[in-house]
Amino acid sequence: MERTTELSSAEEGVSKVLERGRLLQEEASSLTTRWTRDADVLSQQAVALLSDITSLQADINNASEKDEITQPVAQKVEEELYKLQKMMYDGDTASLLPSKANGYFLRMLLGSVNVRATRKDGRYKVKEEYNAYRDRTAVMFLAFPVILLILKNQVWNGCFPALPVQIYQSWLLFFYTSLALRENILRVNGSDIRPWWVYHHYCAMLMALVSLTWGIQGHPSCTRKQQGVRLFLGWAVMQGVAMLLQNRYQRQRLYTRIALGKAGRMDVVWGETAGVKGQLWVLYPLLFILQGFQFFIGLLLLRTAVLEVSFEWQVVACGLLLIIMAVGNFANTVATLVAKAKIKAKMKKKGKQMLHRMTSKKVS
Amino acid sequence: MERTTELSSAEEGVSKVLERGRLLQEEASSLTTRWTRDADVLSQQAVALLSDITSLQADINNASEKDEITQPVAQKVEEELYKLQKMMYDGDTASLLPSKANGYFLRMLLGSVNVRATRKDGRYKVKEEYNAYRDRTAVMFLAFPVILLILKNQVWNGCFPALPVQIYQSWLLFFYTSLALRENILRVNGSDIRPWWVYHHYCAMLMALVSLTWGIQGHPSCTRKQQGVRLFLGWAVMQGVAMLLQNRYQRQRLYTRIALGKAGRMDVVWGETAGVKGQLWVLYPLLFILQGFQFFIGLLLLRTAVLEVSFEWQVVACGLLLIIMAVGNFANTVATLVAKAKIKAKMKKKGKQMLHRMTSKKVS
Repeated sequence: MERTTELSSAEEGVSKVLERGRLLQEEASSLTTRWTRDADVLSQQAVALLSDITSLQADINNASEKDEITQPVAQKVEEELYKLQKMMYDGDTASLLPSKANGYFLRMLLGSVNVRATRKDGRYKVKEEYNAYRDRTAVMFLAFPVILLILKNQVWNGCFPALPVQIYQSWLLFFYTSLALRENILRVNGSDIRPWWVYHHYCAMLMALVSLTWGIQGHPSCTRKQQGVRLFLGWAVMQGVAMLLQNRYQRQRLYTRIALGKAGRMDVVWGETAGVKGQLWVLYPLLFILQGFQFFIGLLLLRTAVLEVSFEWQVVACGLLLIIMAVGNFANTVATLVAKAKIKAKMKKKGKQMLHRMTSKKVS
Repeated sequence: MERTTELSSAEEGVSKVLERGRLLQEEASSLTTRWTRDADVLSQQAVALLSDITSLQADINNASEKDEITQPVAQKVEEELYKLQKMMYDGDTASLLPSKANGYFLRMLLGSVNVRATRKDGRYKVKEEYNAYRDRTAVMFLAFPVILLILKNQVWNGCFPALPVQIYQSWLLFFYTSLALRENILRVNGSDIRPWWVYHHYCAMLMALVSLTWGIQGHPSCTRKQQGVRLFLGWAVMQGVAMLLQNRYQRQRLYTRIALGKAGRMDVVWGETAGVKGQLWVLYPLLFILQGFQFFIGLLLLRTAVLEVSFEWQVVACGLLLIIMAVGNFANTVATLVAKAKIKAKMKKKGKQMLHRMTSKKVS
């Protein structure tokens, strides 16, 4: 008798659970359908609005050039449109806009998996985490070469053993790969990071990989053989200091820009070019010195290849990569400076106009 | 006059666009709020249902052990619960269930970015793409060592130059990193891939990295110095063939299991252990031979370290990693075989019981 009761109670429990499961599935699928439908409608509206904004911007530019509308009106209107665009890319509509496809690098390593944060806070979290990652790793980026250089002088009698250097190079490979992955993910999430800074990390990845295969031992004179390594470590120390400064400046600047509504929260002010006014007088010279030093090490490595009879191809490859990175960094820093100068000139003009208007008002 | 008209028309256009933007933002944020609220309610229900299923499964197991319910009833009920679970993890409810956090590997390389496909087809796409990636790369995995071995004999007079081998090792590093990333993403998306196959790829990544720093030139006798490389390439050729076979078998098997409702579409039947019955008689011996060979190469590398006076640490590291991988692969293959045998025994018992019931029915 008891067995029958047990049996039916178990079966009853199961059939209840199965029924709940069936209902839940139905509700979930109807919610998905409803949400997809509503989101599709809004998504179309958002895309149409964005294209209208773009054409309106072109109209205003045209009219302003033909002097059909006054400069102050054009600027006011442009600013409003720009703010609207930013709001759309940053706010709840962001998830409705068609997402950028994963770039080649992400497709190679991750496939076409979705890396887009769907909810607003998720996207900010990605950005915040990227900043935190840069802060954390900048310390390591500085500490690693400092420790190696100290150990060389204090413990290793002026000659690096291969293993610690190789561990450092492996860390660099991991570090640059991670940065390149994170920056590509930021781009998919709507950040406007300059493409060069991502390409630059591909070059750095390649250099770390090549340097791993470059035996730094086995040469009769370790001073000559390891000159490139020493110079590179020296550069890395400077770069580490620059990274720490940059991170601080750029965070401040980003927060200022967000507060002013000039930047979206997803923007990366990486460019090695940003900074709060005044602090730039420290950062820019340091950046240009770094780029010059990078170029110099590159040339020195190439010279070794020309002078020595039996050189390794890794020397040439690393030399070329350093020169490419130095030139690219320099060009992009200058490009950003020029863009800044233009904006400044525009703002000055605007300021003068406003002053003019205010004085003419006073006069009238 | 015209100027005033232009001005007002431009301003009118802008104010219209701004109004549309405002409305769209409102609708988007209300849609998000509504959807979040509805999803949260269903999400709680889904979590509660899953925990009820688990406790019901325990109850039934208990009752079945105490013989309070009959074997056939327990099995039928267990199967139904299992199917419900699968349906929940695969269907529209899947996106409502709390997502697994990114593992350490993903957090290190990508951060805590969302890699979960939100819609059903997105998740299948991830899985399908993972399979396609394995198919594509298995061909390269086979072709790379074959080409290297042919070139060694035909062009390089029996001695590998360093560069082509290093390119191959770099490719292996990239390949295993990509596999590890993709498998971690699959896990986050609800796949039940065995953890060992992911750890195994971490070992392989480490081995590729270590082998990159291992100079294979510079020894007086290249035959002795490169013995490890030759053996490894031989093993890679066999592994490539096994990968191609496995991919074919496992796809067939996965489709069969999905059709039978025994597997979710997200499952990876990687384990080097699956296959359609009959074909297993080819695959299993091949896998065991491969594991034995891997173990053998590992031992050989360790022996070199013991015999040679000046050995490189890379030899020891690669040897140990190969042995760890061989043992782990063997243990996991055997574990899967045992699990399979148990299921088979259970099914046989069930078959007998059903036969028994049918005959007793006939008799009665």
